[in-house]
Amino acid sequence: MTDTTQEHIVKSFDTELQRLTGEIVAMGESATRQLEAALQALEQRDSAAAERIAADDDSIDERERRISHDVLRLLALRQPFARDLRAVLAALRIASDIERIGDYAANIAKRSITLNRVAPIPLVGGLAPLARMAARLVRDALKAYSTQDAELARAVWGRDADLDILYVTLFRELLTYMMEDARSITAGAHLLFIAKDIERIGDHATNVAENVWFVVRGEPLSEPRAKMHTTDPL
Amino acid sequence: MTDTTQEHIVKSFDTELQRLTGEIVAMGESATRQLEAALQALEQRDSAAAERIAADDDSIDERERRISHDVLRLLALRQPFARDLRAVLAALRIASDIERIGDYAANIAKRSITLNRVAPIPLVGGLAPLARMAARLVRDALKAYSTQDAELARAVWGRDADLDILYVTLFRELLTYMMEDARSITAGAHLLFIAKDIERIGDHATNVAENVWFVVRGEPLSEPRAKMHTTDPL
Repeated sequence: MTDTTQEHIVKSFDTELQRLTGEIVAMGESATRQLEAALQALEQRDSAAAERIAADDDSIDERERRISHDVLRLLALRQPFARDLRAVLAALRIASDIERIGDYAANIAKRSITLNRVAPIPLVGGLAPLARMAARLVRDALKAYSTQDAELARAVWGRDADLDILYVTLFRELLTYMMEDARSITAGAHLLFIAKDIERIGDHATNVAENVWFVVRGEPLSEPRAKMHTTDPL
Repeated sequence: MTDTTQEHIVKSFDTELQRLTGEIVAMGESATRQLEAALQALEQRDSAAAERIAADDDSIDERERRISHDVLRLLALRQPFARDLRAVLAALRIASDIERIGDYAANIAKRSITLNRVAPIPLVGGLAPLARMAARLVRDALKAYSTQDAELARAVWGRDADLDILYVTLFRELLTYMMEDARSITAGAHLLFIAKDIERIGDHATNVAENVWFVVRGEPLSEPRAKMHTTDPL
């Protein structure tokens, strides 16, 4: 192989990886908007909007499949190693985490349709701050990914603890409310599940951050953090 | 490249893929046993066993990372295409699904520790049949994977609907119980989450089945089934 050919291949690997990173970040932005739209549909009791959000998840799933396929083709054709191999592995994992975030947003939308069949309960308002915090975590994780910013990734990783604290507070409030008024139990149970879904979106933002750190630094961020590390309180 | 070298590479690809499939199936068996052990710890209110189960999840996570790394190395070195490329993609996805099943089992174990701090509620017995059905689905999905049996994979895919029906029944029973006795609300909420975790294990068994079909038949099993398709009832 001549030097020029080698250089050409290296260049196209970088170009193609950059394109794929751009697609993954765009997919992440779509998933984050799905989360925000799902919360809005929940608060406004808008079942028609919720139906659309749930249906739109298919396009995120389809994008994830296409990106994974392209990433694997790139890997098969280019035989990268060291940082390039880590970048390919991270792209696959990050795309998968974003696909899960989209699933959770769709789940929230579907559950809001169920909730619209019963009387509203006031605590639904407590979910918006949790969702906003989760959306910020996802956006910052995506920013760390697109700019390969390991320090920002570490900050995102640390901030997930704040989301967990807010989740635990909300969990307790919901249980208290359910104990005080048995008629709120069904709606309350669905809100517990929605809160949990949002908390898990934060875990996936954390996963993205861990992958960014791994690509840039070549070592794990720390001991692998369990994906579902928040034990719900009594 | 001589014919002999080509043949050698082809042979080592198959051998290595077979080895990886074996590792993935063994990992799947570990995750299934974790689920069974978590249910036993829950029923027997054995917090010490639950702690061990939660801790053991790290070894499943570590195996998944090692397998993914080996799969990607194989892909980078051997440049497979067509069915071989599908098999590599499926191996990555199936390993990831099994890792999630292990996470859910660990979650159940952690939640059982929380439950042991409050008075027992009788409905905990309803979870065992759900978990047994989920464990059977996972084992059959793994069998379909190790034997590349597309028809068994399709059967597993269809049987997930039975698990969903059982889940919905249990969900309703738990809510009714919580409405009748406010003191059961905290424990009931945790049992709802455990039931949901088991239902999601079924979804991951379904994912494994879809991947087996895709490898063997070269086309999707059907329209991609949403990973979290069960909308909880009112």
